[in-house]
Amino acid sequence: MTDEQHFENGVSILKKMIGEADAERVRHGWREISPDLERLILEFVAGRMWARSALDLKTRSLSTVAALTALGRTSALELNIRMAMGNGATKQDVLEIMLHMAPYAGFPAVWDAMKIASQVFNAITEK
Amino acid sequence: MTDEQHFENGVSILKKMIGEADAERVRHGWREISPDLERLILEFVAGRMWARSALDLKTRSLSTVAALTALGRTSALELNIRMAMGNGATKQDVLEIMLHMAPYAGFPAVWDAMKIASQVFNAITEK
Amino acid sequence: MTDEQHFENGVSILKKMIGEADAERVRHGWREISPDLERLILEFVAGRMWARSALDLKTRSLSTVAALTALGRTSALELNIRMAMGNGATKQDVLEIMLHMAPYAGFPAVWDAMKIASQVFNAITEK
Amino acid sequence: MTDEQHFENGVSILKKMIGEADAERVRHGWREISPDLERLILEFVAGRMWARSALDLKTRSLSTVAALTALGRTSALELNIRMAMGNGATKQDVLEIMLHMAPYAGFPAVWDAMKIASQVFNAITEK
Amino acid sequence: MTDEQHFENGVSILKKMIGEADAERVRHGWREISPDLERLILEFVAGRMWARSALDLKTRSLSTVAALTALGRTSALELNIRMAMGNGATKQDVLEIMLHMAPYAGFPAVWDAMKIASQVFNAITEK
Amino acid sequence: MTDEQHFENGVSILKKMIGEADAERVRHGWREISPDLERLILEFVAGRMWARSALDLKTRSLSTVAALTALGRTSALELNIRMAMGNGATKQDVLEIMLHMAPYAGFPAVWDAMKIASQVFNAITEK
Repeated sequence: MTDEQHFENGVSILKKMIGEADAERVRHGWREISPDLERLILEFVAGRMWARSALDLKTRSLSTVAALTALGRTSALELNIRMAMGNGATKQDVLEIMLHMAPYAGFPAVWDAMKIASQVFNAITEK
Repeated sequence: MTDEQHFENGVSILKKMIGEADAERVRHGWREISPDLERLILEFVAGRMWARSALDLKTRSLSTVAALTALGRTSALELNIRMAMGNGATKQDVLEIMLHMAPYAGFPAVWDAMKIASQVFNAITEK
Repeated sequence: MTDEQHFENGVSILKKMIGEADAERVRHGWREISPDLERLILEFVAGRMWARSALDLKTRSLSTVAALTALGRTSALELNIRMAMGNGATKQDVLEIMLHMAPYAGFPAVWDAMKIASQVFNAITEK
Repeated sequence: MTDEQHFENGVSILKKMIGEADAERVRHGWREISPDLERLILEFVAGRMWARSALDLKTRSLSTVAALTALGRTSALELNIRMAMGNGATKQDVLEIMLHMAPYAGFPAVWDAMKIASQVFNAITEK
Repeated sequence: MTDEQHFENGVSILKKMIGEADAERVRHGWREISPDLERLILEFVAGRMWARSALDLKTRSLSTVAALTALGRTSALELNIRMAMGNGATKQDVLEIMLHMAPYAGFPAVWDAMKIASQVFNAITEK
Repeated sequence: MTDEQHFENGVSILKKMIGEADAERVRHGWREISPDLERLILEFVAGRMWARSALDLKTRSLSTVAALTALGRTSALELNIRMAMGNGATKQDVLEIMLHMAPYAGFPAVWDAMKIASQVFNAITEK
């Protein structure tokens, strides 16, 4: 496949996961700080990794939320909580997988991550 | 519930996930370095966290493997690969969720984790 | 012991360390994002770990502040600075143990942590 | 050499890298939260480590930005982006070395770091 | 470009950096634990990221060694020390950039990384 | 003070904490991989940070062990367990502060650290 095909796949996967408006908002944020960042995320992360068929999207999403909770990465956690919900996870699933991280990454990581989840849930409800 | 009940639950959950012989081997390792470590892992991690019904065990396992890959925790990764397989994940699932971590935790974390997975798979086959 | 007894112990330990008003404020924050988070922190972290008699509370507190400085966990650092002072540490002790982390976790971790300490100290003085 | 000489070296190295006004602003921030932090950073980090002749300052700067991107240290990242530019790196160099971290520390670390770079670049332009 | 072209670029870049024999040894290690890992590293990490022209290879290498020192990733550190030397860095440059990490990632990270550097240097000399 | 005075202080502090034979063994290890590493550790880490009077050595040691447990730094953990015991901590204190890290850094970090503690304790007993 070509880079362009991966890019197109990535764009359509992102849209399917978080909706067209949100996808455009997130892409705009990447593009503004670095067009290369936007391109590589869409081609490689969305278009290559999320396009793999081996595991279902909900399992990928919850595992990603788990890892980002452990790593404490703020911006990506916010996005991946939205992606998880687009991939069929409920709010309760998201909080549960974060709580499951308590004995593995520690309660402080869970606390920080749940604060972000809480903001995302509020933002979704307000719309 | 009492601590003792959580402990008994933890013991039986661990056995169900990795088998009686392996459970005894792992518990012996914890007990030898710290009886309190063994007790708290069985009561709290196995008996409380893994006993929760909200998410299926395979999703919990793959998410834990994802997070431990990101954190680079050697001993727990070895154990959780075994647990994942006891919870219905195939070797391919384990490698796939590790690979999925490449854009989130970096390829070096994936490489180190897959080396451990490789050793666990070999150990299982040799038995 | 039962979960409920650990919970009651955790509640009273937290109150003793940071005072009734602050304990309620912190618990409210946990409860709002996840009642399970509040319960597990009070039962397990406060009621089990902080209830252990083997080391004095001030040493536990300063060690926790040291580790949270290294890990960069914002919310828990703010709480544990308050706990440290409730357990007999002075502002100078808190800053000193953070500074001691410079050769172990790097100056950037110390800088970020001291900014939080500074905010906590100001908040306490203003009351 | 004496501590005082390292201190003086550190002060003049910092000024040379980010300019007198910015150096004073940053030093004031350190001093306000801990005079010992200011002194050790100037004596040891600036006056000892950055005074070493073995590698040129631009390479040191880009390597430091790379490591702080991986570690996610906010305050020091902001400072070291300014230092990198004072040491001859362009905005494009800073973004490029951050992007280079994507396969090593993950895209989420790059995203968070580029947001900070973006703010620093805007602050510089506005002056 | 196509995936195959990135792959071919990645293979030739890796060979140029560490030599044909070493490149084959490393690729064999990846392939054995996961053919997908080998392919993605060659296509994306070597063929996309290292193929970018914006920064010279020596600067990229030393920055990568700096970040891997901070992150403590064993296997990738060993490889990137070899790559750095293939990209024109001397043993002294490698040790210097590791030492430069002391105030940023802490001395313990430097110590662990220098042990690996020491083993790589010995392995090279013995050949 | 001069660098040389800090160095001499660092040497004598290290000897006092782990004994003359062990201090020489550790210094030899640093010197062999990098004479600059040995010098900076003795001057800055031992001679500056550990020479500060503000907190007692046992508290500093246990806090350092706590942070290194969280960070997973192998070589420094081994050394700091020995230092902690030289500073009056018992084996039980060392294990207790590691266990205290379970809710903050996760059980996997504690498990890895206790394995190292166990090896150090065995090595001490065998002598």
